[in-house]
Amino acid sequence: MKTLQVELEGRSYPIYIGESIYCNLSLLKDFIQSKQVLILTNELLADLYLDALVKQLSEYQVASCILPDGEQFKNLTILNQIFDVLLSERFSRNATLIALGGGVIGDMGGFAAACYQRGISFIQIPTTLLAQVDSSVGGKTGVNHALGKNMIGAFYQPKCVLIDTKVLATLEDRQFSAGLAEVIKYGLIRDLEFFEWLEGNMDALMARNPDVLAEAIERSCKNKAEVVNADEFESGVRATLNLGHTFGHAIETGMGYGKYLHGEAVAIGCCQAADLSYRLGYLTDRDVERIERLLVRANLPITPPKELDAERFIELMAVDKKNIDGDIRLILLKKIGEALLPMPVARSLLEQTLNNYGRN
Amino acid sequence: MKTLQVELEGRSYPIYIGESIYCNLSLLKDFIQSKQVLILTNELLADLYLDALVKQLSEYQVASCILPDGEQFKNLTILNQIFDVLLSERFSRNATLIALGGGVIGDMGGFAAACYQRGISFIQIPTTLLAQVDSSVGGKTGVNHALGKNMIGAFYQPKCVLIDTKVLATLEDRQFSAGLAEVIKYGLIRDLEFFEWLEGNMDALMARNPDVLAEAIERSCKNKAEVVNADEFESGVRATLNLGHTFGHAIETGMGYGKYLHGEAVAIGCCQAADLSYRLGYLTDRDVERIERLLVRANLPITPPKELDAERFIELMAVDKKNIDGDIRLILLKKIGEALLPMPVARSLLEQTLNNYGRN
Repeated sequence: MKTLQVELEGRSYPIYIGESIYCNLSLLKDFIQSKQVLILTNELLADLYLDALVKQLSEYQVASCILPDGEQFKNLTILNQIFDVLLSERFSRNATLIALGGGVIGDMGGFAAACYQRGISFIQIPTTLLAQVDSSVGGKTGVNHALGKNMIGAFYQPKCVLIDTKVLATLEDRQFSAGLAEVIKYGLIRDLEFFEWLEGNMDALMARNPDVLAEAIERSCKNKAEVVNADEFESGVRATLNLGHTFGHAIETGMGYGKYLHGEAVAIGCCQAADLSYRLGYLTDRDVERIERLLVRANLPITPPKELDAERFIELMAVDKKNIDGDIRLILLKKIGEALLPMPVARSLLEQTLNNYGRN
Repeated sequence: MKTLQVELEGRSYPIYIGESIYCNLSLLKDFIQSKQVLILTNELLADLYLDALVKQLSEYQVASCILPDGEQFKNLTILNQIFDVLLSERFSRNATLIALGGGVIGDMGGFAAACYQRGISFIQIPTTLLAQVDSSVGGKTGVNHALGKNMIGAFYQPKCVLIDTKVLATLEDRQFSAGLAEVIKYGLIRDLEFFEWLEGNMDALMARNPDVLAEAIERSCKNKAEVVNADEFESGVRATLNLGHTFGHAIETGMGYGKYLHGEAVAIGCCQAADLSYRLGYLTDRDVERIERLLVRANLPITPPKELDAERFIELMAVDKKNIDGDIRLILLKKIGEALLPMPVARSLLEQTLNNYGRN
């Protein structure tokens, strides 16, 4: 088992990465504050993992809340179901919430923990590749609004993150590929060496070779932790983690939550950001092709949905957390392995990318 | 104009107290982050004050969100209406929310500001006595859940609080009295001198004598600020501000939000807490009578609603943020002017108070 540390003043916490550790009580118990434990999960994962986890927690007063599976359920209405359970069970401010699931469960569980009685403890047990390499680390929590993705939320850090690489065995291929989009993103924004390693190991990764997979997860988490350590509340460099996300969120919101997986939308968005970086003279056309090639090898889409034209894209992108006074600001690549801080882009240039990239 | 300061590391802010300052742009403008300003208010207050405030803010991009008036609308569903407006207006993370209203508007506005894009700036302009002396200061924000009051929320501090004593002229008597419950509470928990001053000045206060009223507000805010400065996140002494609130919240939830005003429920709760403090040997029967007398002079109710029996009270009180592992913990008085930290109370004794106090 490997341990990484997220170092935040007064809110530091460990990330454990290992095989078959998701219900390891000796790891968990130091982070459970009292007898009261709520396990939040979804229908699919409850069948696979809930019983084993509940069994390990037999000395606690355990309740569970099982949500429907999918991004389209990440909203305030479904969030309220978590509060229903916490209150029906008379859970106190010293209760602990365990989020056992992918990005949706982690984001909602973290936000519910942030808000319930103005804050209870929570633990992340991410079960998808995307959640393991990205969303479970760093304390971004929240829900979607019909008009914008992740628009309602909180910065709220978990007490620990428990990454069990073995649970990925049950992950369906499409979800696995979606996770690889965020893995590749780390290479693109700040780690050329990792990007090159991914080029060399994508076949083994797609075959889910355990050692290669473990290394990819660890290197991703290390990148994520370093960025979060440097800028917890996204006043600067943390925004670079959003490469491809402004385009991606527009795709998710515009097409209806759940139609594209988050990672799929991010993959397309990364290509659009690369195209724009090329138009601005930062990347060469060969850089763009190289990025596309790696994403395609990860079985990810790279062209935007035909349903969204440039005008609609811009309308959707006008709602983004990086924008200032309504100006759209984007993360672009200076080169492969180095991102630029959020910058406004001339509308005409943005339209060129939106009208031309992947539109043949 | 008087200025008090809430001193919190990195989140300090001023409380301005004065006449006709609610739309004083020179005070406001230092705390507005960008061109985008949302004014949150309710139907009643919009008619009275919205136009004048909007006029002062003519150089900004101002939107307004007008909510229905009342505690029964302080919930997640209505909260979402605020996000609807923020998103429809394409408001960015550097937007500023001004909460112009009583406790409900302040609590919801603060919570919306805490959650929108994971946090935007907000300014409190409290328009009820209760909001001016209590809820606008200290950063407790949130909404109710059908099963418990203020159960969903955040600690989130405003950038400034602007208390205009003149707006109280339009406050109806019942609301004014409700505010006095929190004023009297400060005397009870930590300021005997203030309690005695209130005994000497209650008639002038009820007549809304401007000087007496201004002094009551200032002394209340000073007490509130001192407690919050000492314990922002309620790990200790801040809980004493909750004198009467566990009983009070049970009354509000049990009778249906909006039936009793918050201050009315707190007044009754203070009497129940005093009765329990008497049964535990802390207060004398004359202390209890003295407390009752002052509340009655403020035209506040002091007996619990007949509809709630002891069993139902206890059921409702089992959901409270001070509880630990489901044990009900209460704020009691050691004497008039000094509160005890939250403590568990034997159920038999609690039942004595619930069955006997005000039940004749």
